[in-house]
Amino acid sequence: MSAPLILISNDDGIQAAGLRALCEAMLPLGEVVVMAPEVERSAAGHAITLSDPLRVNEVDLGLSGVTAYACSGTPADCVKLAVLSVLPRRPSLVVSGINHGSNTGINVIYSGTISAATEGTILGIPSAAFSVARWTNPEFGPAKAISYQVAQRILVQGLPEGTLLNVNIPDLPAEELPVGSLEGRGYALTVHGKADWQDRFDRRVDPQERVYYWLAGRKRERQEPPNTDEETLKAGKVSITPLHYDLTHHSYLTDLAKWDLFRTN
Amino acid sequence: MSAPLILISNDDGIQAAGLRALCEAMLPLGEVVVMAPEVERSAAGHAITLSDPLRVNEVDLGLSGVTAYACSGTPADCVKLAVLSVLPRRPSLVVSGINHGSNTGINVIYSGTISAATEGTILGIPSAAFSVARWTNPEFGPAKAISYQVAQRILVQGLPEGTLLNVNIPDLPAEELPVGSLEGRGYALTVHGKADWQDRFDRRVDPQERVYYWLAGRKRERQEPPNTDEETLKAGKVSITPLHYDLTHHSYLTDLAKWDLFRTN
Repeated sequence: MSAPLILISNDDGIQAAGLRALCEAMLPLGEVVVMAPEVERSAAGHAITLSDPLRVNEVDLGLSGVTAYACSGTPADCVKLAVLSVLPRRPSLVVSGINHGSNTGINVIYSGTISAATEGTILGIPSAAFSVARWTNPEFGPAKAISYQVAQRILVQGLPEGTLLNVNIPDLPAEELPVGSLEGRGYALTVHGKADWQDRFDRRVDPQERVYYWLAGRKRERQEPPNTDEETLKAGKVSITPLHYDLTHHSYLTDLAKWDLFRTN
Repeated sequence: MSAPLILISNDDGIQAAGLRALCEAMLPLGEVVVMAPEVERSAAGHAITLSDPLRVNEVDLGLSGVTAYACSGTPADCVKLAVLSVLPRRPSLVVSGINHGSNTGINVIYSGTISAATEGTILGIPSAAFSVARWTNPEFGPAKAISYQVAQRILVQGLPEGTLLNVNIPDLPAEELPVGSLEGRGYALTVHGKADWQDRFDRRVDPQERVYYWLAGRKRERQEPPNTDEETLKAGKVSITPLHYDLTHHSYLTDLAKWDLFRTN
């Protein structure tokens, strides 16, 4: 039996330290191939490229045993193209990250890291996204150990159709994280919360005296239930949320039926 | 009391015929302002622009009573920027479309049309997306009447927090659609289905003899339950799906707990 093939992508781009960390974490588990955006594609959502050609270039990451490609497209493009056209066989696992910064609450909707894993799920491959809760120079050691354990278990257990794991790791030293803990202390299975941003735009004037806008804003301070992704992370625990893509608001269907939408008044 | 302010966006771009149709449909309901991508942004997913400035230019659509802006960003950027920085007051409704082509099943994940309405929802404003099931030269007359009725009802009834309506209209003559029908014949409240694509990439060589890839593929033929968005549309009915953004796979949390993820073996 050949080693499992593991496809890695991200949204921070092919040169990101978190991508390298995820490669190192996955290497003991199988054959690793990377297809990642050639430039940063944060907040790419689940964008795919329809109107432009996609380019792919092999890149040497200097990691023995890792084949890596940089792609001109989005994270979702990377995974779709790798699986359908570039990989030598179907991967057993798609992992995305390790993202520089958490992906909880509303960020999940905007995140390119999540979208790479989502694309894996859409293609029917068990997938997971990994993020560490620090934007600048995160320490990836603990996150690597967590990613390894989660990926290893997904390879054994599989995941249900249409379901991915969204794993957020607090920015804490390894000894405070749950790796190898019998009690499971230090992590929680969580629900997708509503943590969001107090967005605003800076209105600026460029050197040619033309107006432009730049998205600014900061995380809104709000208290959520303790079983949400964001609150779990704030409490210093690893958050693991199973996500799926049935977007139906099932319980609201009954109310909506009462609208009798197209009646003539 | 001033007329409700209605914000319109889309992903086909400021020049799309479907955008104009939606403007015409909304004008009897309130004050209409358009903020739409300056170029087509189909399959933009829920991308937002973080690393580049956004530009906005007023455009004359030649529609009396409509103020329109073209924006350099994605559909989600358009709605966020309009609401937070450009509109004179908070809109009562965000509508997106009318999209040239349906947005059912997996397309909902990729769709820029949906993402504009999603952004409205994230900002706490009742929102809906409208699509007509024909890519080339759709007839928008019936879709306009449907959009008007749905929007009018949302303005009266509101929508629950975090919930948007995804409305897909079959490409049929007006007399076969449910407008004004007492019985509600011709439309159905539906669930988000799994209709997807048989994707593949064309591998081509450019005039400089460099390889590129172009996403191709066609809708997969599959039968789904009749209460899904796609099957409803195929049956010639208007499909109305309430969508929300709790992506948690709630029922799977119990199974996942049994993994005992970080036990030492």
